[in-house]
Amino acid sequence: MIIDCHGHYTTTPGGLGAYHDALHARLAADPGALPELPVISDDDIRASIEPNQLKIQRERGVDLTIFSPRASWMEHHVTDVTTAKAWARAANDLVGRVTQLFPENFAPGCQLPQVPGGDRTACVAELERCVTQLGFVVCNVNPDPSGGFWSSPPMTDEYWFPLYEKMAELDVPAMIHVSTSCNPAAHTLGAHYLNADTTVFMQLVQGDLFRRFPGLRFVIPHGGGAVPYHWGRFIGLTVREKFPPIEENVLGNVFFDTCVYHQPGIDLLTSVVPVGNILFASEMLGAVRGVNPQTGASWDDTKRYIEAAKLTDGERAAIYEANARRVYPRLAARLG
Amino acid sequence: MIIDCHGHYTTTPGGLGAYHDALHARLAADPGALPELPVISDDDIRASIEPNQLKIQRERGVDLTIFSPRASWMEHHVTDVTTAKAWARAANDLVGRVTQLFPENFAPGCQLPQVPGGDRTACVAELERCVTQLGFVVCNVNPDPSGGFWSSPPMTDEYWFPLYEKMAELDVPAMIHVSTSCNPAAHTLGAHYLNADTTVFMQLVQGDLFRRFPGLRFVIPHGGGAVPYHWGRFIGLTVREKFPPIEENVLGNVFFDTCVYHQPGIDLLTSVVPVGNILFASEMLGAVRGVNPQTGASWDDTKRYIEAAKLTDGERAAIYEANARRVYPRLAARLG
Repeated sequence: MIIDCHGHYTTTPGGLGAYHDALHARLAADPGALPELPVISDDDIRASIEPNQLKIQRERGVDLTIFSPRASWMEHHVTDVTTAKAWARAANDLVGRVTQLFPENFAPGCQLPQVPGGDRTACVAELERCVTQLGFVVCNVNPDPSGGFWSSPPMTDEYWFPLYEKMAELDVPAMIHVSTSCNPAAHTLGAHYLNADTTVFMQLVQGDLFRRFPGLRFVIPHGGGAVPYHWGRFIGLTVREKFPPIEENVLGNVFFDTCVYHQPGIDLLTSVVPVGNILFASEMLGAVRGVNPQTGASWDDTKRYIEAAKLTDGERAAIYEANARRVYPRLAARLG
Repeated sequence: MIIDCHGHYTTTPGGLGAYHDALHARLAADPGALPELPVISDDDIRASIEPNQLKIQRERGVDLTIFSPRASWMEHHVTDVTTAKAWARAANDLVGRVTQLFPENFAPGCQLPQVPGGDRTACVAELERCVTQLGFVVCNVNPDPSGGFWSSPPMTDEYWFPLYEKMAELDVPAMIHVSTSCNPAAHTLGAHYLNADTTVFMQLVQGDLFRRFPGLRFVIPHGGGAVPYHWGRFIGLTVREKFPPIEENVLGNVFFDTCVYHQPGIDLLTSVVPVGNILFASEMLGAVRGVNPQTGASWDDTKRYIEAAKLTDGERAAIYEANARRVYPRLAARLG
């Protein structure tokens, strides 16, 4: 079985976009009543999924994708908590419906109604709702709700603990995923996403979060940002700054996905990061779409790179399936 | 000949540290007269260099290092322009003296008196002083003087043009190098440095800076941050967002150094980035000191990785010497 742990609903029916715009219009005009929820039919959803993610999944031979709302649209920089709650709920409900219509192909992950510096009550409540009522298996947590200005405390800070306590109680991991960059210095897909991955990994290296929350699990997407490429730097820094070894302090709880869009990158990832810490993913349909003219294959067809990497069949099976079952126990339960 | 394009004076005599502290004390108390300049003898300088950078240079068989002030100490987040000017001048003068005492072994690079959002007049003046009066061959430019909050416009913005005009006139390149992180979310050496490299590369991919300044040259340190590891992502994004090809738009003017501290990283760098865009460097004595227990060699002994990489002798010579002579014409002139 091949599990893709990182997909986003980037092809939502127009109704969700209209709701998004109505939420923004409300904020600009008069923050009174919330707009009407969008009317989106099952056929609308099927039409948005079947020729896109489902078609590509089948073409590539992937069995199941962990599917969450479009990351750049989480827009946690919008500071109005009422908006954040309504928007997260609508986006999550729609993802939930996708996974009910295609239960064999998709398992749901939720976005949280984070706002910069806001308290975590709404996030904890939405996480609980998604997991206990809708069968979600993971949440996306944004380490920088400001969108590129990095105004939040590190993810090792107690600011985040209420969320971690709920995650531990529900036994769900988090994917660390920022949303759109509001900072003209940092391109969303070409800088902000990768920087967040690197930044959070280093926060975890410096901290002792997993001594306090031994069951907490984080997935760092986009192949871990810059981390595997600079693996020697991270190990060397750890020794120099007298942090505990990464293997003991971090790797029991942190996993990198395979959203790295060329063979040399995947070869590096699989040669320096222990196989038990790698989860198959493509981010399809995500940041990079289109075909590499040199190979004739899609950039984000990461299964090709995993197939070509120097791995044993057992290692490949761990990356494709076994690791994911371990990291996402609610997915494992769903799969039986 | 082997040229290391990235070294910092991290072992300065105590006098410079005392001056640093006196500048800060002045700011905290009464921004009146500047403190006395430090008295540092030639013997003090020799004692700080001979058992450190010079010894290691000789042990490793490196001939010359482009040497600039300690990066994390540039401290461009300090907003007082008088302090910035005095501090840059003192740090640069000391680097200049190192290169006068050891002209065969070191060529100087300067820090600029940047402050967040400040005008560039002082930077242009200090660059001109260093290059025309002291024989400096490169400047370090900080894309985020705020130290981790990214409050400056992208490096493609006209905000930076006065500096570029002077660089073009003097025919010196810039190394893009941030200083210490003031943001608790971003570790200086394990996140902020790498993020800056990635961020600026993407700014250049998005922009058209080199059409306006065709002679401008930037060196992106630390192996280009996350860029080579995600080379497929950057090419794919370029196509998707209809930016001009990276090769035409960026690679004529941008170079990555080899400060990547393990063999798989260097193998990746040299396999995806054209050899003409790679400059040998170690950052010695820099972020990572100490020995990799698996190899028995220093993490930052990057020459070992270049020696072991699949390169022809001609490619290796380009990375070690020829590219640097091209990127730093004032170094080439110095070497004859």
